[in-house]
Amino acid sequence: MKTQVTIKDIAKALNISPSTVSRALKDHPDISQKTKDAVNKIAAELDYHPNTIAQSLRKSRSNTIGVVVPELVHHFFASVISGIEDIAYKAGYRVVICQTNEDVTREKINISALISSRVDGVLCSMTKETKEYSHFKSIQNRNIPLIFFDRICNEIKADSVVVQDYEGAYEAVEHLIEQGCKRIAHFKGPDSLLITRQRLNGYYDAMRESHLQIDEDLIIQADDRESARKAIYDLVKSEEPMPDGIFCVNDNVAVGAMMQLREMGINVPREVKIVGFEDDTTFTRLTDPQISSVFQPAFEMGQRATEMFLDELKRKEAHPEKILEPKTPRIEVLKTKVVVRGSSNEQVAQQERARRNYLENV
Amino acid sequence: MKTQVTIKDIAKALNISPSTVSRALKDHPDISQKTKDAVNKIAAELDYHPNTIAQSLRKSRSNTIGVVVPELVHHFFASVISGIEDIAYKAGYRVVICQTNEDVTREKINISALISSRVDGVLCSMTKETKEYSHFKSIQNRNIPLIFFDRICNEIKADSVVVQDYEGAYEAVEHLIEQGCKRIAHFKGPDSLLITRQRLNGYYDAMRESHLQIDEDLIIQADDRESARKAIYDLVKSEEPMPDGIFCVNDNVAVGAMMQLREMGINVPREVKIVGFEDDTTFTRLTDPQISSVFQPAFEMGQRATEMFLDELKRKEAHPEKILEPKTPRIEVLKTKVVVRGSSNEQVAQQERARRNYLENV
Repeated sequence: MKTQVTIKDIAKALNISPSTVSRALKDHPDISQKTKDAVNKIAAELDYHPNTIAQSLRKSRSNTIGVVVPELVHHFFASVISGIEDIAYKAGYRVVICQTNEDVTREKINISALISSRVDGVLCSMTKETKEYSHFKSIQNRNIPLIFFDRICNEIKADSVVVQDYEGAYEAVEHLIEQGCKRIAHFKGPDSLLITRQRLNGYYDAMRESHLQIDEDLIIQADDRESARKAIYDLVKSEEPMPDGIFCVNDNVAVGAMMQLREMGINVPREVKIVGFEDDTTFTRLTDPQISSVFQPAFEMGQRATEMFLDELKRKEAHPEKILEPKTPRIEVLKTKVVVRGSSNEQVAQQERARRNYLENV
Repeated sequence: MKTQVTIKDIAKALNISPSTVSRALKDHPDISQKTKDAVNKIAAELDYHPNTIAQSLRKSRSNTIGVVVPELVHHFFASVISGIEDIAYKAGYRVVICQTNEDVTREKINISALISSRVDGVLCSMTKETKEYSHFKSIQNRNIPLIFFDRICNEIKADSVVVQDYEGAYEAVEHLIEQGCKRIAHFKGPDSLLITRQRLNGYYDAMRESHLQIDEDLIIQADDRESARKAIYDLVKSEEPMPDGIFCVNDNVAVGAMMQLREMGINVPREVKIVGFEDDTTFTRLTDPQISSVFQPAFEMGQRATEMFLDELKRKEAHPEKILEPKTPRIEVLKTKVVVRGSSNEQVAQQERARRNYLENV
């Protein structure tokens, strides 16, 4: 038994030529509406699916966008993907997603697989560990548009979308200073990622411009809940005075820091104020106090990355025979905004708690 | 300039025949180790990627598993995917993921796309809206293994993996009864999903076996935070007495219900006790009180589904020429377990709170 229905099967059923069927399926003007209707009816009945592998071999197009992200458990990346799909589906593209689990080898395998299956473009957010970039070059060497988002790669000339990481960090630290913090720590991400270097720079500049002393011992690498807990534990146990504010590289770090502070008997926000960088609104509003955070437009980031891919595809298709260098790589920067909740402001924390106690004792 | 390096390029560089290169790349015993080493070296230098489209056209294999899930923002599905990848990568398969956003049309498009790109298998969790199943039949008609997980399809003969939805629900309601609840509501999912029907049945049977009266007005469809909030609002505003326990179809519903109860001045767990069904441990432990929930092994579900695919592939490859009916579809059922936290037990809630207050006032 045959496993795939082909154009020949449809032609046979209607007693017309395969090329007529092919043109009818493509809505070619030379074919009568009556024939087109008959062909489409039989195609549906026989459950015909065009063989896109054979097609893409001929026209070197698969109508597929490959997306490579570190981890799908991060709400942030799931939102970016929804933004990508929003634009992609409207433009007639489907989206396949690969996850690297922060593993460079898997990033390379995924990208090699996407190249081999002839995707029309790759949208990528690198792993924390990526320090060698030949797999990205491989994409570009084949004239396949490559767009970075969020965790971009300065070493490769490619269009990219980021948020105002520097500005968001600057404003978060400025906000902590306005709340009276003088000894502010930064729980930072790995130095390999541009976004974490930008956030670190925002921290430095905000501290300097307020003439606050920067204690390098308070700049600690901690980018998940567990490492944040450990960093707090070490700070409490050390001989040095505790920080009175912490700017965290993401919300998970902020949650971990707050839980550990609480368990060690330190009040947030009275004794230590905390601001995170948004990755998941589903939990920043569940804690007591709720967590202040730098909002970033994830859905919009996905939309913009996909629009950049479509632009780049148009440019490359005008010159299919040569590899085009990206002119001057475009970097689109999306706006961030500090959202103040109870973890960085005592009055807001009291309001959050008063509202709750009032409601519970009505 | 050429965009893809081929076997011919390698052959030319080494001045040997393309078929020698091809066999060297496949580690064929007729080719000397010296030649193999030379070929592999040049292949790496030229950045050669095998053209899997052409290959899969020849051998009808792509070494790719397609995964179709409703929504990646659910932590549960992200964990299942990690389990799938765990087994798939070890077996030499790569994984591409498509998301349906609970939209049947997108489910059909994604599946059609996966069929067209010749995936070796499809692992699927249906949308809430799927009530017509021809796209699943399309997969099976092509002899492509189809495995369902979590949201399975009783109307299609296919292997599948679920958790003990009935038993988990039964135990959750039994737990509420043990806590003294007599008037227990169920916030249920859509009737189209087998898992929500199973959880409803568990609720019914636990109520019946304890000889508690079932009030059909307390069985309310609410499967996200917002609909849970509305259901609570309606219950509080109605003339009828409030329920003293609620078994929620998932944790998001439990969070929505608890937040709304609190805002309307009703104490959880004193006045109303709540149990959810696990989808995201990142937030059930952040609330005050923490949320009791039925644990389900998501990672293991992904592993088992992938192992079932590998078994099914073996069986089908033994008979490539015919479409095999699944013998008797296997349904693997994974164990669930009620995890008691403060939302369903006053003593535990007091412990959670006492621990916090003590720590904050040290």
